Amino acid sequence: MQDLLNDILEEVKPLVGQGNVASYIPELAKVNPNQFGIAICDTQGNVTKAGDATTGFSIQSISKVFNLVLAYIYYGNSLWERVGCEPSGLPFNSLVQLEYENGIPRNPFINAGALVVSDMVHSRLISPHVALRDLIRKLSGNPYVLSDVDVAESEFEYRARNAAMSYLMKAFGNFHNDVEEVLHTYFMNCALRMSCVDLARATQFLANRGFCTITKSDVLTGDQTRQMNALLATSGLYDEAGSFAFKVGLPGKSGVGGGIIAVVPGRFSICVWSPALNKMGNSLAGVAALESLTRHIKWSVY
Amino acid sequence: MQDLLNDILEEVKPLVGQGNVASYIPELAKVNPNQFGIAICDTQGNVTKAGDATTGFSIQSISKVFNLVLAYIYYGNSLWERVGCEPSGLPFNSLVQLEYENGIPRNPFINAGALVVSDMVHSRLISPHVALRDLIRKLSGNPYVLSDVDVAESEFEYRARNAAMSYLMKAFGNFHNDVEEVLHTYFMNCALRMSCVDLARATQFLANRGFCTITKSDVLTGDQTRQMNALLATSGLYDEAGSFAFKVGLPGKSGVGGGIIAVVPGRFSICVWSPALNKMGNSLAGVAALESLTRHIKWSVY
Amino acid sequence: MQDLLNDILEEVKPLVGQGNVASYIPELAKVNPNQFGIAICDTQGNVTKAGDATTGFSIQSISKVFNLVLAYIYYGNSLWERVGCEPSGLPFNSLVQLEYENGIPRNPFINAGALVVSDMVHSRLISPHVALRDLIRKLSGNPYVLSDVDVAESEFEYRARNAAMSYLMKAFGNFHNDVEEVLHTYFMNCALRMSCVDLARATQFLANRGFCTITKSDVLTGDQTRQMNALLATSGLYDEAGSFAFKVGLPGKSGVGGGIIAVVPGRFSICVWSPALNKMGNSLAGVAALESLTRHIKWSVY
Amino acid sequence: MQDLLNDILEEVKPLVGQGNVASYIPELAKVNPNQFGIAICDTQGNVTKAGDATTGFSIQSISKVFNLVLAYIYYGNSLWERVGCEPSGLPFNSLVQLEYENGIPRNPFINAGALVVSDMVHSRLISPHVALRDLIRKLSGNPYVLSDVDVAESEFEYRARNAAMSYLMKAFGNFHNDVEEVLHTYFMNCALRMSCVDLARATQFLANRGFCTITKSDVLTGDQTRQMNALLATSGLYDEAGSFAFKVGLPGKSGVGGGIIAVVPGRFSICVWSPALNKMGNSLAGVAALESLTRHIKWSVY
Repeated sequence: MQDLLNDILEEVKPLVGQGNVASYIPELAKVNPNQFGIAICDTQGNVTKAGDATTGFSIQSISKVFNLVLAYIYYGNSLWERVGCEPSGLPFNSLVQLEYENGIPRNPFINAGALVVSDMVHSRLISPHVALRDLIRKLSGNPYVLSDVDVAESEFEYRARNAAMSYLMKAFGNFHNDVEEVLHTYFMNCALRMSCVDLARATQFLANRGFCTITKSDVLTGDQTRQMNALLATSGLYDEAGSFAFKVGLPGKSGVGGGIIAVVPGRFSICVWSPALNKMGNSLAGVAALESLTRHIKWSVY
Repeated sequence: MQDLLNDILEEVKPLVGQGNVASYIPELAKVNPNQFGIAICDTQGNVTKAGDATTGFSIQSISKVFNLVLAYIYYGNSLWERVGCEPSGLPFNSLVQLEYENGIPRNPFINAGALVVSDMVHSRLISPHVALRDLIRKLSGNPYVLSDVDVAESEFEYRARNAAMSYLMKAFGNFHNDVEEVLHTYFMNCALRMSCVDLARATQFLANRGFCTITKSDVLTGDQTRQMNALLATSGLYDEAGSFAFKVGLPGKSGVGGGIIAVVPGRFSICVWSPALNKMGNSLAGVAALESLTRHIKWSVY
Repeated sequence: MQDLLNDILEEVKPLVGQGNVASYIPELAKVNPNQFGIAICDTQGNVTKAGDATTGFSIQSISKVFNLVLAYIYYGNSLWERVGCEPSGLPFNSLVQLEYENGIPRNPFINAGALVVSDMVHSRLISPHVALRDLIRKLSGNPYVLSDVDVAESEFEYRARNAAMSYLMKAFGNFHNDVEEVLHTYFMNCALRMSCVDLARATQFLANRGFCTITKSDVLTGDQTRQMNALLATSGLYDEAGSFAFKVGLPGKSGVGGGIIAVVPGRFSICVWSPALNKMGNSLAGVAALESLTRHIKWSVY
Repeated sequence: MQDLLNDILEEVKPLVGQGNVASYIPELAKVNPNQFGIAICDTQGNVTKAGDATTGFSIQSISKVFNLVLAYIYYGNSLWERVGCEPSGLPFNSLVQLEYENGIPRNPFINAGALVVSDMVHSRLISPHVALRDLIRKLSGNPYVLSDVDVAESEFEYRARNAAMSYLMKAFGNFHNDVEEVLHTYFMNCALRMSCVDLARATQFLANRGFCTITKSDVLTGDQTRQMNALLATSGLYDEAGSFAFKVGLPGKSGVGGGIIAVVPGRFSICVWSPALNKMGNSLAGVAALESLTRHIKWSVY
């Protein structure tokens, strides 16, 4: 396994730094693009890693996976009354579909869907961000996971489009709490700093039918885990979901911080990270590393 | 395996006949809804079956799978210059996305995409329908597979929307042959009559890394097969692709004739058939049977 | 003229109360639907009236006309850099076009356009609502025109869709001030209470090449007045703009409070009011009264 | 009046040839862009002209006005059951709105609307093109008006988008005749060659409450004429309808051949022509000439 990661590292080195670091908020634009890390966590909890795998980065949209876990815990399958499970076919931050489909977002991994999930969690918890952080600390076994307040504030300042989506859903009756408060929590969640090792550990339950080897407990049921992976496979990489399935063939979730988590069901979870993004907003070297991985292990879910 | 199919048959019996038979063309509307068949073909070519598994039905959009095989054979990966590999997020026969995306259909399993694939095949073959029929005859081992000319003519008569899509793509330069001719071929392909057993056999190569045990030859390469399955997983069931991934978790393709093929990679291919459709246009009892199947075998790709 | 108004009053009486009072905010829903007023103000400033022409009502979107006057005064033709002058072809509160056209609203009479105009006025004035109210008091010669704070607050509470539009424009850089503050002003403007007589007087300058006979001064230049009337003719009645041009043939602006102002260039301004609305959101009896008017005077701009 | 036209000619001279001649069909691209003509026909039938006012050109979409006259004659107001009277807010050849609005075009001056009107006329007449040509010959007093068959054939060859729209409407049940046949007629109508003088005469009835001074007979009723002019004012210049109302303020209809007809109700009809088009597809010098005209006569409908 270590050889595999070393090989991948060697292979993608020329790509690291290609593409562009997310620049829509000043704080994210400051990151050095010449970094790359990869970590794998198998179903026994063994971690293998290479490159900058212990460097913390902003997990951004990868937080949507954990937020959905919270929603599963508090709502079960009734959560699907307020958000769909279909691919969106439109940019991750589009309002068009929301308007045509009465404020019900297509899936929980586009922004509108994640916002509605945040709103749901808000209705049940007093400190939803703390709850999410604590969940992540337990799942990753790292009690020091923290949110980068500067990033969160920078995102809040540039909240206009997310605010627009939230208010539009509110206009359709599908957003119940105060928009600004939910956005605060949402951005705090996005701004969590974690390393590849942290994230590989924290998502290992997805490769293990919902069972977390670190906490020795079920995070989701087997059925829920299959559903989560199915959603990650069809909708986890924004507009690149189809081509990611096509080229990589694993359930996965990316974030504009340059991280991507992926799952080989029954075997292991993976986290790659490299800050520079391709045109679709996903880590350029990260996608290449995952392509290389499935080529090497001669395995994809398909 | 036989027990499994018998159990599934028993389980879905109450659902058979629920929903509505496709009525947009008179010929299809004549089918008796109270039929149900299922067949499985493993990677050694062994077939297990239950119910009306040897009754022929109109394969309709399932023909798109075989047509894409032809395009792979004649164009290789260059085929993706004229059609995408992303989920569409819109109804299967929508023209909106075509107009916004310059006549490039989202994927080869929505109608516009299948029409462009037909147009491509037309540019290379003198008798594209005969070529497709012969391919299917070989893959299924059934030399008597034939198209139902009454169905094809009925579809041609009601061709308006498919003609509109073809002409719109022509306006964008992404349709090269005569629209009426391509539509004739397209409808002849859709009107092919096959049974569950035929289709399970003919798609067995998808479960077998592209190798067909009947012809003892490679239909697609291993990579192409993974790609095909990925596409089937993200885009094979129209608007229900996401929820099918969610509930069933297998690559699959449905047709308005009530057939659905699905793939358990490395193990077997499946074909279910029952003519009455749910609101999304997929066989109601068929989807239920596949859900039951993955529950029984405790396995999905995710 | 008095006979004309009496005839119209008689003619539309059976229609008064038909349709539905605007119910999207509780305050507006309380109005008695069985009211109808009409007033005409000629270019000498003479007013003729019939029915409930001195009863105050919520002017709602008619305020957009006066707000645009403020924008003309402070920005001149540079105002058109931030808002278009084309019909929208979509519902008045749609976000779809905004997203496709980079946050530039189609015209100043749909909500998004009026919000951008409010934002512009906000950038130049400390008390934009007071400025608007004072302008209206002068133009109408009624120093007691006031805003109904209950209505404004009720609208603010249900601000979600307008907030969504404002934030979406902010995301595109076409909204400069604080969203909540601009919305406060916007709703205070909408909640101004005026009678038919007040509004006929206050819009008389539109029939008089921009000259207000009450203040004896130019409100707009002749060219600006022609432009304003052209805009009112193509975009003043929401989705009914075309059919209003078709049936009535006068520049006009409606509000969900049931008021409609219209202009016979060179001759007079008109205000009709009746609270119950047709399906397009315009006063049912009001539209009928204006149809009757142009039929009686055998004159439209076309 | 002659002085006026001479002044306008002088004023727009520097603009003649600016912009681009329509190039979507080869035949139209051959026209010399350095031509400009203008003609006015008053309600007594007196014609004043300047520049290349007697040179024939392809009237293209201006034919939609006459085709709508035929529909009025054969269907009366029931024609509005199959086509709307609202501005479209989308490009003249868009299919998006058709799909969202069930195949009912927004108005008779966008392509889809004109195609439906052609289809209607086809249902009533054996030789619809001959009928249109004869109508135009009578109205213009020029018995030699003919269609340019080369242009019509060239347009038919590039018919894809118009065919797409026709088939889409057929799919919604709003197109009854054979698509290819209706397109033949449609393109023959578009390819009619007329001069500014011909067109000013042929549209003079629009300035004269429907009465044609040449044939001494009513073409449309007064009400129908008002409706036609209202439609021309809100929808006659494609995407530039609003800004044309804004700048020129007259009902008008443009064609990609570079012609524009406009109406000063009660006074006269105008036809300007110059082949080079602005970005919106309307004659650049033609629009400027009409702006100059309304500035000189200090009059618009608003």
